[in-house]
Amino acid sequence: MERLVVIGGDAAGTSAASQARRRRGAGDLEIVVLERGPYTSYSACGIPYWVGGLVDGPDALIARAPEVHRARGLDVRLGTEAEGIDLDKREVAVRDTATGEAARIGFDQLVVATGASPKRPPVPGIDADGVFGVQTLDDGRALIDGLAPHRRRAVVIGGGYIGIEMAEAMKERGLDVVVLDRGAQPMSTLDPDMGVLVHEQMEAMGIDVVAGADVQGVETGPDGWVRAVVTADGTHPADLVVLGTGVRPASELARDAGLPLGDSGGIRTDLRMRVWGRDPRHDGIWAAGDCVEVLNLVSGRFQHAALGTHANKQGRVVGMNIGGEYATFPGIVGTAISKVCDLEIARTGLREKDADAAGFVYETATIESTGRAGYYPGADKMTVKMLAERASGRLLGVQIVGRDGAAKRIDVAAVALTARMTVEDLTALDLGYAPPFSPVWDPILVAARKAAQKVAQ
Amino acid sequence: MERLVVIGGDAAGTSAASQARRRRGAGDLEIVVLERGPYTSYSACGIPYWVGGLVDGPDALIARAPEVHRARGLDVRLGTEAEGIDLDKREVAVRDTATGEAARIGFDQLVVATGASPKRPPVPGIDADGVFGVQTLDDGRALIDGLAPHRRRAVVIGGGYIGIEMAEAMKERGLDVVVLDRGAQPMSTLDPDMGVLVHEQMEAMGIDVVAGADVQGVETGPDGWVRAVVTADGTHPADLVVLGTGVRPASELARDAGLPLGDSGGIRTDLRMRVWGRDPRHDGIWAAGDCVEVLNLVSGRFQHAALGTHANKQGRVVGMNIGGEYATFPGIVGTAISKVCDLEIARTGLREKDADAAGFVYETATIESTGRAGYYPGADKMTVKMLAERASGRLLGVQIVGRDGAAKRIDVAAVALTARMTVEDLTALDLGYAPPFSPVWDPILVAARKAAQKVAQ
Repeated sequence: MERLVVIGGDAAGTSAASQARRRRGAGDLEIVVLERGPYTSYSACGIPYWVGGLVDGPDALIARAPEVHRARGLDVRLGTEAEGIDLDKREVAVRDTATGEAARIGFDQLVVATGASPKRPPVPGIDADGVFGVQTLDDGRALIDGLAPHRRRAVVIGGGYIGIEMAEAMKERGLDVVVLDRGAQPMSTLDPDMGVLVHEQMEAMGIDVVAGADVQGVETGPDGWVRAVVTADGTHPADLVVLGTGVRPASELARDAGLPLGDSGGIRTDLRMRVWGRDPRHDGIWAAGDCVEVLNLVSGRFQHAALGTHANKQGRVVGMNIGGEYATFPGIVGTAISKVCDLEIARTGLREKDADAAGFVYETATIESTGRAGYYPGADKMTVKMLAERASGRLLGVQIVGRDGAAKRIDVAAVALTARMTVEDLTALDLGYAPPFSPVWDPILVAARKAAQKVAQ
Repeated sequence: MERLVVIGGDAAGTSAASQARRRRGAGDLEIVVLERGPYTSYSACGIPYWVGGLVDGPDALIARAPEVHRARGLDVRLGTEAEGIDLDKREVAVRDTATGEAARIGFDQLVVATGASPKRPPVPGIDADGVFGVQTLDDGRALIDGLAPHRRRAVVIGGGYIGIEMAEAMKERGLDVVVLDRGAQPMSTLDPDMGVLVHEQMEAMGIDVVAGADVQGVETGPDGWVRAVVTADGTHPADLVVLGTGVRPASELARDAGLPLGDSGGIRTDLRMRVWGRDPRHDGIWAAGDCVEVLNLVSGRFQHAALGTHANKQGRVVGMNIGGEYATFPGIVGTAISKVCDLEIARTGLREKDADAAGFVYETATIESTGRAGYYPGADKMTVKMLAERASGRLLGVQIVGRDGAAKRIDVAAVALTARMTVEDLTALDLGYAPPFSPVWDPILVAARKAAQKVAQ
């Protein structure tokens, strides 16, 4: 009987396994899922809400527990770390994380879904007690266990999505919070002129945001627990440190096996999520999730984009293909949304620096409107920035910062980017209008009108 | 000097006038706006919220008062009813609604923006005191003036958008409310299997919805005020009656002038919103707003679609064209959103009966999901129904009923319909994901997956 081995039991791996199982019976395909940790199919994105006390963890963050997968015919092996892939023998070398016992498992098909690793700044003390990642449920548990009444000061290193979400979570726990960010403004996935709106909101919440911070080390006390974070410009006392510095593809296993990586460090795949290359040893080798690189449909470049939504889609594509169907993952447009307090933050497509790097010549248009009819209660300011290619008018990117209804409005732009619409096309879109949900001209349309005027000049 | 005459001072007319004015100076183009009533540029869509006490009216519902338009160089003439258009002499016959005085105004270019009229069921008593339309701010004022402590029972005729919004408004005013609807379910802009969800919500709010109601007359008391609404199945006592029976194009003036109307009764135009036809007397005659018919880009048929958002877009297109630019209104996809209490209702594209009429063979897929990650506080049920053409998989329509975030999610489908995407295309869309705003698979994507499976079979 054919055997499928899946390395990684989170979103991508279990999606692939589940989809393959739905299409191929237990008598036709054996499916083994190797998971290093104690959990499967969990939402790392939910950790800030668990830490902040909004959600009970970790159980609520587990979409499907191992026993659920097992009941559906997946041989899930927890505490089992993959240490090597032998493409010639078609075997995975594994080690039991508890006993240290080593073994080898043969495969006919293999899914590499090894995820991502947090970027730890390479500075002294970064591995000290009291410094926490936010990547796994064990990370979340460790951080919560580290909370204590005498630990009053939290320093978050990195002001991206996870950084600001964790800053809010620590604030909700009653701590004093400082965010150290390298950039001119937090949320560097936005242009700085939009990031400043996030900065203002965080300051209004009493979160201290230090821009241009160059972290040089972490100081510990006599007990080995973190005491301060040292930057080029000063020392920030810290009883807890959270790493919000982003992630990189955990592609070492693939690299060591000779599988091809892209410039981003992610595993290269074809449209069906087969590992790239004509090497016949790559037959039946798939990759999905935070360990792969993806095509950005706007820039035309490959990039790393670690998001649960991509991992789920890619895993599904792999599983459908293994199951005998034809499915592809065409790429992304770079959509991401978040919130800090009630401020919603969204982006898709290219920022100015992305558009510059891709070689586009473009115009920008920024407008202020409201998310509801101006007269409707709760109508709050919404700022929309739009980038469009000069001459062609092709939409290149949108950023939105506002309150109720700002975040998911970005989806309009995500679809328009996928369809390669122009900003003139956008001005005619038949978007939903009713006073509780939108002004008669949706903010996206107002921005499109302004952008269309600018590209036509 | 050239003179532009605009008939109608609401959204379409004033948008056209304002856009023309921005592009052509006062020394180049005289602009006269004829408005029958006392207001300009108001939001009829806001009337339910005014009546319900959520919004202060009528001033808050006026986007631009006459004096604002006048300060910007528009000669706005209130209380001035257009009674005839003479295409040969290029004159509009007008009458002062206060004095009855008649006059004629010559034009070089003309914009017909005469709006829509409520459909009054042709039954005895329908014009009685205590029966109210919801079309103009004067209607709203009259209804509010008609509220009184001894008037406890409201009957709303028609269970469409305006009907359910008015039912909620009357309920918020503390009245007992009955909605009489002709269809099997209220909200006949949805398929009945989705309309039932609206029905359940209204019943839960204590609003009595009578389906299949055949209104035969309105009874009045000795004082001439409404006393009851009579249907084929019984009599419903009523102290106030609200007409939520929809509107038809107010195109009589255009028809009488010999301008072409479509099957919907709306004025026919070309893409630039010029009145259709090669007759040279049609040169410089434009139409926009609730009085025109529009192309439905999904069905390929023309229809009447009275919505402020279309009126604004069309008015802008007319004004840009008069101003010497090139602008078009390509059509609609049939998007509409509303709410009743906290239940959000959205639709775009074709219902089953529209798809049948257009000749499509299609599959439907209905799914239940949540608007947020399942573990995030406030995650409520969201139901999505999707129609897709068999074989091609082309998306034909989407309906959504749910709570927080349901209504504006329809915009994703509106853009996808505009771009003629398939449901398979939809499954790969890079929509925004974060636990407060969406499950990792957005409900739209879940519906698309199911629809894609069905069309592939």
